[in-house]
Amino acid sequence: MSPITVLRTLAVVTVLLGAPLACGADDEKDIRAVLDAQVAAWNKGDLDGFMAGYWNDEKLTFVSGGDITSGWKKTKERYEKRYKADGKEMGRLTFSELYVETFGSNAAMLRGKFELSLEKEKDEKKKHPRGRFTLILKKFPDGWKIVHDHTSAEEVK
Amino acid sequence: MSPITVLRTLAVVTVLLGAPLACGADDEKDIRAVLDAQVAAWNKGDLDGFMAGYWNDEKLTFVSGGDITSGWKKTKERYEKRYKADGKEMGRLTFSELYVETFGSNAAMLRGKFELSLEKEKDEKKKHPRGRFTLILKKFPDGWKIVHDHTSAEEVK
Repeated sequence: MSPITVLRTLAVVTVLLGAPLACGADDEKDIRAVLDAQVAAWNKGDLDGFMAGYWNDEKLTFVSGGDITSGWKKTKERYEKRYKADGKEMGRLTFSELYVETFGSNAAMLRGKFELSLEKEKDEKKKHPRGRFTLILKKFPDGWKIVHDHTSAEEVK
Repeated sequence: MSPITVLRTLAVVTVLLGAPLACGADDEKDIRAVLDAQVAAWNKGDLDGFMAGYWNDEKLTFVSGGDITSGWKKTKERYEKRYKADGKEMGRLTFSELYVETFGSNAAMLRGKFELSLEKEKDEKKKHPRGRFTLILKKFPDGWKIVHDHTSAEEVK
């Protein structure tokens, strides 16, 4: 095998391998779009649309406080109980301070801040629940999905 | 370039590329060792030893509740205020339900549960603070380090 042949083959392999690595910027855009779609759905009262950002699998995990919820169905039920039950409201959601970091071309971390504005809530201290989240996302054939969500609420004083 | 030459070169490249990917099991062992070392240090009252598990950099992030702390130094100060100040104690730390997932050969997620046992604390409800954490770790020349920590405490009822 001549050195030229080796170099030529390696060059082809490098280009092939380089392609997915060069997609970082697009990936970040696609990942932010998942969250934008979640916010838009939430603010229309569309919980199914919001849930579309999560991996529809039993292995989805959702951590809040000291609890872990496993699976897409149970995660949805948790949201239903908190925001769709009698006397509850979804309110208006905003995300801020979003920071995305990709690990290779198929996994990423996103951290950020959330704030809800609840219209019906009369207690001023509970009117704007806010907190932070750390998400792990993976790229599937149908796009980026949240596979793990760790959310924590700001203490209400 | 003959087909045989191409195949031969690709075989070599595949083996070279396969090596880091095959390190998953060792990586998981190394990552768990970082946490084992943290627990051992904590339970000796050695905060510096505990902090050695974190990336010593300004870009380290530590999220708890609605707060984000940036940088190794400030993260250490946060621990000092909570566990080393007058009347405070580090107590006995245990981790459980650890789950590791690697993303390629240089990044990983680790989630788990913590529990502290505080000897001096007289209030039974506050004697065993517990909660969950999601860590992002990266592999550096001197080993795996936590680059992001999201910790949330179980609500005390």
